[in-house]
Amino acid sequence: MRQSLHTLQIATAGKGLVEITPRIRPWVEAQRIATGLLTVFCRHTSASLLIQENADPDVRADLETFFEDIAPEEPGRYIHDSEGPDDMPAHLRTALTQVQLSIPVAAGRMALGTWQGVYLFEHRSRPHRREVVLHLLGE
Amino acid sequence: MRQSLHTLQIATAGKGLVEITPRIRPWVEAQRIATGLLTVFCRHTSASLLIQENADPDVRADLETFFEDIAPEEPGRYIHDSEGPDDMPAHLRTALTQVQLSIPVAAGRMALGTWQGVYLFEHRSRPHRREVVLHLLGE
Amino acid sequence: MRQSLHTLQIATAGKGLVEITPRIRPWVEAQRIATGLLTVFCRHTSASLLIQENADPDVRADLETFFEDIAPEEPGRYIHDSEGPDDMPAHLRTALTQVQLSIPVAAGRMALGTWQGVYLFEHRSRPHRREVVLHLLGE
Repeated sequence: MRQSLHTLQIATAGKGLVEITPRIRPWVEAQRIATGLLTVFCRHTSASLLIQENADPDVRADLETFFEDIAPEEPGRYIHDSEGPDDMPAHLRTALTQVQLSIPVAAGRMALGTWQGVYLFEHRSRPHRREVVLHLLGE
Repeated sequence: MRQSLHTLQIATAGKGLVEITPRIRPWVEAQRIATGLLTVFCRHTSASLLIQENADPDVRADLETFFEDIAPEEPGRYIHDSEGPDDMPAHLRTALTQVQLSIPVAAGRMALGTWQGVYLFEHRSRPHRREVVLHLLGE
Repeated sequence: MRQSLHTLQIATAGKGLVEITPRIRPWVEAQRIATGLLTVFCRHTSASLLIQENADPDVRADLETFFEDIAPEEPGRYIHDSEGPDDMPAHLRTALTQVQLSIPVAAGRMALGTWQGVYLFEHRSRPHRREVVLHLLGE
């Protein structure tokens, strides 16, 4: 049994979903672990992780709209607004999704379903640089 | 340290929670791992996982109603509707819950609390066949 | 490769976020595992876990308000109310957040971001005693 650690740097372009499966997959496969567990961890409180459909981009647009509605940028709605109107909504959107995902590895690959992609969900309006830690354990 | 992998096939009857603890428990116990970590992973984007109360079935009814309300089936509300009115709500319900759960194993059993059961949450109206991957690591 | 298990007892003072990073950190560091995976698991269906900003307490106040609004205590709204008006809202708030978090360990410490703290989120009005299981695997 052995383990590997790696940190991805993901550049975002403001609010929305960035698919990171193509960043994770080659690293996992390069570790040559046949069976194991991959953990993906987002080191932020205003960006999160989501496994979602990787086929139709409209799904990402609808997800963004949904989270805009459920945690709206509204002056006076939140006490915490030190970094602007998108600050507290970003924390709420993070709370409602995940900052960590663990995915079994089988036959050397992530055991994702056919339509599943791994996404970094940026919740701030401006572009950010995000750190995502990958931990793989297995043999 | 060793690991085991297994895939459960779960038949659902349309929207709602299906308890899968009785499907997971015997497999975990058969692996004879005293201490370890079990990961449950749902390979879909319109069904998810939830740990919830296993005592009163009313909790499941209220959960279903809550998610119907928060992500309603409403014509024209979503761009993505290629598979019908329950398509995009299913993705939203999945985003708000989890597709993965990891549960410590102690004394050969999942360390669930007394009232905790593991559920597959079906978000589509029609019956589906769902794949849930189990990964157990320990010794 | 080796593993450790531990159960924390967390006293809560009713609804709201209790930071438990200071309870987890010394235990993790005492295990002297350089690289590994920590899993935090909440054994309840009316309390959950959240990684959130550890700097401004206003974030915690806004989070509490948000979840009060999204899953309100409203007579007649839920079928399940056997333990009072905060009973079903507590299950919904748990479903929308997490009962489990896994955090990579690097250089003997949790790989949390600078602003990330681990919180137990109490969803019942009255003080409770909560059990949180820690599982650490690595070497």
